[in-house]
Amino acid sequence: VISNLQPADQLTVRRNNLALVLRLLHDEGPRSRASVANETGLNKATVSRLVAELIDRGLVRELGLVNERRRGRPPTLLELDGRHVAALGLELNVDFITAIAIDLGGRVIFQRTRAIDAATAPRHQTLRALASMVRQTVEAVSTSCNTIAGITVAVPALVDVDAGAITFAPNLHWSNVDVGSRVASALGSTVNVSVDNDANLGAFAEYRVGKHAGTANLIYITGQTGVGGGIVVDGRLLRGASGFSGEVGHMHVMEGGPQCGCGRFGCWEALVGLRPLLREAVPDVLAMVDAAHTRVGPEEKVAHVVRRAEAGDTRVLAALQRHGRWLGTGLATLVNVFNPEVVILGGFFRDVAPWMLDEAEETMRALSIAPDAGGCQLSVSTLGFSAAALGAAIHTAERVFADPGGV
Amino acid sequence: VISNLQPADQLTVRRNNLALVLRLLHDEGPRSRASVANETGLNKATVSRLVAELIDRGLVRELGLVNERRRGRPPTLLELDGRHVAALGLELNVDFITAIAIDLGGRVIFQRTRAIDAATAPRHQTLRALASMVRQTVEAVSTSCNTIAGITVAVPALVDVDAGAITFAPNLHWSNVDVGSRVASALGSTVNVSVDNDANLGAFAEYRVGKHAGTANLIYITGQTGVGGGIVVDGRLLRGASGFSGEVGHMHVMEGGPQCGCGRFGCWEALVGLRPLLREAVPDVLAMVDAAHTRVGPEEKVAHVVRRAEAGDTRVLAALQRHGRWLGTGLATLVNVFNPEVVILGGFFRDVAPWMLDEAEETMRALSIAPDAGGCQLSVSTLGFSAAALGAAIHTAERVFADPGGV
Repeated sequence: VISNLQPADQLTVRRNNLALVLRLLHDEGPRSRASVANETGLNKATVSRLVAELIDRGLVRELGLVNERRRGRPPTLLELDGRHVAALGLELNVDFITAIAIDLGGRVIFQRTRAIDAATAPRHQTLRALASMVRQTVEAVSTSCNTIAGITVAVPALVDVDAGAITFAPNLHWSNVDVGSRVASALGSTVNVSVDNDANLGAFAEYRVGKHAGTANLIYITGQTGVGGGIVVDGRLLRGASGFSGEVGHMHVMEGGPQCGCGRFGCWEALVGLRPLLREAVPDVLAMVDAAHTRVGPEEKVAHVVRRAEAGDTRVLAALQRHGRWLGTGLATLVNVFNPEVVILGGFFRDVAPWMLDEAEETMRALSIAPDAGGCQLSVSTLGFSAAALGAAIHTAERVFADPGGV
Repeated sequence: VISNLQPADQLTVRRNNLALVLRLLHDEGPRSRASVANETGLNKATVSRLVAELIDRGLVRELGLVNERRRGRPPTLLELDGRHVAALGLELNVDFITAIAIDLGGRVIFQRTRAIDAATAPRHQTLRALASMVRQTVEAVSTSCNTIAGITVAVPALVDVDAGAITFAPNLHWSNVDVGSRVASALGSTVNVSVDNDANLGAFAEYRVGKHAGTANLIYITGQTGVGGGIVVDGRLLRGASGFSGEVGHMHVMEGGPQCGCGRFGCWEALVGLRPLLREAVPDVLAMVDAAHTRVGPEEKVAHVVRRAEAGDTRVLAALQRHGRWLGTGLATLVNVFNPEVVILGGFFRDVAPWMLDEAEETMRALSIAPDAGGCQLSVSTLGFSAAALGAAIHTAERVFADPGGV
């Protein structure tokens, strides 16, 4: 009547207790079984059983004996064995694939990026490149890690998280692609694979390890071919009713505006994405890349803009000013609607910030109804193009702490 | 280490326990002290003390004896005495003030609306009208209620909820007005007064008692001179970092658009608010009302539009079509960003819905990136112009259940 608490079933209890012990060792460092029992309130027999399971799964190891100068046999210390467990994060985007592996201590133990051309290449070729990157990553970490905790794949798409599938990816021209099972079958093993939106995972990386880590109300904007939003509200990722929130790139900001990758006209992304910037600022470069179907990563593309901006190219500087204004226009809508503490610009925005950030911020402030934009700070990500892959890896690692029995 | 639970101080414990007992009587109906002790797990002496305090505050009364055919003295039943406690909600808007009083059972026991002209009247005159409405309401309910649980005032403004003050109200042309203390001092007593944004309180009413009550992800749009948004995410009202969220009326939707009450150009409100609709559809009516400084409520204003639309006036019908398109454009942005289950249109939108809702919905769907607008339903409020006042009254009542000691 008063409380909705129900007796948890045994499986849930075991999972929660495994997580409790693992997190204690992670947060507080090595300690004995007796200390674990003491601090968790679990009885000693249960702790022994849980620890045995964690050791068995390669998540915990025995460190040695404590010399506590007491009578009797000194207890054995237990330690999180995170160095031998790899959590993988991948990002598949229009022009690159990035893989990052971290250990359970959060250290990056592997990172690789390759340029692709997913917009024009056949889908199976792109999925093969992704699978190949996964296998390379697993192989590379296998020298130091004996356990793969799982894989999370970031994609520039509306995602059905439960199914691990892309619903719709405008810039890849993909609909209903079962990315999760493709990746899993590429490994031929039972590794747990999750799929999530790139902006959500980028926001998650910012929330966990970015320079504004822990900020309860933050918005992360991806800067790729597409522009997406990962939105943290009161410390929780906004997902919406069916996981389709944060599609800020398709806010309609310009009546009669240019055509977007999604087919509509006047989307924010069609004005502030990397491709429209290249078209306005360095059309010759874009034409060359497009004609050659060359695989050119986003860093290389934006480098052309930066070089000419540094050289004082007036066309490029004017394009960047206009870009900043449109960026600020959409940001103001997000400020008016969410009242965030900070908006963090990811991807290529960092590289061109010196020539457009002031314009963006001024426009954002001018079009925000709250005084001083409600205190919102406009910031540039320090995680660059690998934010989503890093967020994906952290997401994988945190799943281990939530459910160590799932490894 | 593991848990952050700290021993609650005695005051908190007492407040929580009072709330626990009161909610039990509210949700489960009359019962004895012994039953209350049983069901809450509190000991009998504590329950007796809590019940005495609740009776003292007029929130609980003794109903009579239970005939349980058992030995010994039959126990006395306790009942929520909500009929004698009034929770007040007021809405101050540009062209009207509404007061609603409900009892703790949720029944509306008083409702009154008067037309004002807050945009041109001096501020002190409007505040005097508000204070007078509060006094009338208190007087009207005093015949049936012996306790005023508190007052919540809804305003079309950015609000500092903690201070009970308006930060900025574009359509009233007010900045930094301490509405809460003005209302409190008008009563000359120590009644608790809260102030909150009209859209937030309208959304709260929809979430509690509207036709989509309980929908975890809903957006409520106010339809007044101004247009605001109250946004419920996962069952919680979105407030943002400093309470300035939901200012959807000032989303910049039209480059070079008409001027808004806030001074900017191209805000959504300047295209879909009541005033721009009157200007486009029935300019003669608007000119007349403006010239005469007549106090005309929003219902009366929109009735002119409805009458001419019913008569087939082509100017009015064209204006409504255009209105629907711009409405849908802004709604699509909200759908793309929040992925709500339902968007509920409040205020005057209901009255003109027959001539513009299809157009609005079509545009909303066309500009949403998620298939089928992510499943979002477009709905019209059944609470009309009194949604915010009703939400304010419910807010007041729920505060009693959260903290019965505060009455």
